[in-house]
Amino acid sequence: MPDEFSLIEKYFSWKNIPKSVALGIGDDAAILSLPENKQLVTSIDTLIEGIHFPKETDAHAIAHKALAINLSDLAAMGADPAWFTLSLSLPDNDETWLQEFSEGLKALAQQYDIFLVGGDTTRGALSITIQVMGFVEKDQVMLRSGANHHDKIYVTGTLGDAAAGLAALQGELYFEPNDTLECVSKLEYPQPCNHISRIIRSYASACIDISDGTLADLQHILDASSVGAIINTDKIPLSPILQKLDRNKALELALSGGDDYQLLFTLPPVKAYQLSSIIERRKLAISCIGSIDKSVDGIKLVPELPLAQYGYKHFT
Amino acid sequence: MPDEFSLIEKYFSWKNIPKSVALGIGDDAAILSLPENKQLVTSIDTLIEGIHFPKETDAHAIAHKALAINLSDLAAMGADPAWFTLSLSLPDNDETWLQEFSEGLKALAQQYDIFLVGGDTTRGALSITIQVMGFVEKDQVMLRSGANHHDKIYVTGTLGDAAAGLAALQGELYFEPNDTLECVSKLEYPQPCNHISRIIRSYASACIDISDGTLADLQHILDASSVGAIINTDKIPLSPILQKLDRNKALELALSGGDDYQLLFTLPPVKAYQLSSIIERRKLAISCIGSIDKSVDGIKLVPELPLAQYGYKHFT
Repeated sequence: MPDEFSLIEKYFSWKNIPKSVALGIGDDAAILSLPENKQLVTSIDTLIEGIHFPKETDAHAIAHKALAINLSDLAAMGADPAWFTLSLSLPDNDETWLQEFSEGLKALAQQYDIFLVGGDTTRGALSITIQVMGFVEKDQVMLRSGANHHDKIYVTGTLGDAAAGLAALQGELYFEPNDTLECVSKLEYPQPCNHISRIIRSYASACIDISDGTLADLQHILDASSVGAIINTDKIPLSPILQKLDRNKALELALSGGDDYQLLFTLPPVKAYQLSSIIERRKLAISCIGSIDKSVDGIKLVPELPLAQYGYKHFT
Repeated sequence: MPDEFSLIEKYFSWKNIPKSVALGIGDDAAILSLPENKQLVTSIDTLIEGIHFPKETDAHAIAHKALAINLSDLAAMGADPAWFTLSLSLPDNDETWLQEFSEGLKALAQQYDIFLVGGDTTRGALSITIQVMGFVEKDQVMLRSGANHHDKIYVTGTLGDAAAGLAALQGELYFEPNDTLECVSKLEYPQPCNHISRIIRSYASACIDISDGTLADLQHILDASSVGAIINTDKIPLSPILQKLDRNKALELALSGGDDYQLLFTLPPVKAYQLSSIIERRKLAISCIGSIDKSVDGIKLVPELPLAQYGYKHFT
């Protein structure tokens, strides 16, 4: 049975090392060459079996999601992905599992041009911690704190599909088999919006990725920016699958469900005008769902909706 | 009961933010200003309860060790500490534990001038993942692969004290109460050698920190450098406490025990001569324990010793 060193060597030493990696996996630390005139953006996230993904999730999907949610954090800041490190805690040394995990990780990493530069494997309950590093031009960074009165509020893609997938897995919602597959795929294989981040970062006043739920994450922007918001619930983008559900249920999934990893961002009116032609020309899936209003306390839904909860929180 | 966001806010948002931190904890990611003409050095390590520390270890010590072993990786590379991120998995929200953990982390971070820039808390079995980031001048980096024939081999401090502490905790060795306390303190509160790293990095041809055990870690240098080594077992530095033990037992702890977090490094003969006056003048605890020899396969111990094992490995 291989030891920790050969595990890392076998599954996590990648070829085609980019020039920015002076020293990758194999020493006490990685050595990385920094670009000039940029800022380093870094984020760390842990996924734990039974908390962040169901026990039966396959290794390929776990790897995808662990990296995707971190890429999504870079997208939310307007940063370009560069490198990541991985700490993997495994209950046993299952080589089939490791092979699938490694393939899932590599597939997404190659797609998003991010390179694994360091790793640690330990024995323990299954959990995956990834720290991503990326770079941003100073004037293109998107913070939660930049939203202003009159800014328009936008989201990418459609909302609530991942939450629908979870509800389907948990037997709380029933879809046709193909619809179930698609929603579960949205849950297990979120596609981070780094390509849209590159377009909007020159325009947006604030941005966040939707991980806890649309309203919960919007509230983070409102808190950081000391403003309120009006959301037009008729404008919430719903996938064809969610449109088949009872409308209140669909909107609850879209507004309170988590794990979508779409971007929610704000644009000053003049920038909204500038970006609208780009959105049309490039056929980007971006919807305006409301506006920032400093006279509102928190979030006002128009038309109003009965919502059971406002997003997922740990330790509550 | 506070949620994840207020937990991070309460225990992990530090004051006196250094200039290099453009944005710390609180957004999707941290934004950090990079120094010019340096390389980024980064390493990630996870500690799991029951694997890396006994269940009864207090939170202050756990925090210390989790950061210390990462600082030690930077020391092994010759890098100066700058920032770190923390992912903390906790079985419950014990505020006393969090307070002690936070204090242990902060005390060591302030001592070593490293700043917490990002965090994630999740519910799960107790585990702590820390990623450190630091910087090094290109010509001062120390790799495992730089050792050459005739280089002298050095270690810092004394060896085997942490392993003696673990053996004492596990009831396998018996010491006087004060000696037990001191060895356990070496196990729980390792002092990373970043101060010595700053001195030796202009001279050393290769370096590693001793985490798995002296011989196991030396072997990593030998593998990476394609050389062998002769170790003079009479020169192994032993603390007064270990000198009270049977000599073979003491040397086994010193050579095969892990967790010392001393540095093991190699110096070309001319550099050894240059550094020796600095070592004397500054009264540095550094000992020459042998030399690199390309005609030796692996490690030759002179005089020879009966050793039960060559260092700790996961998954074996």
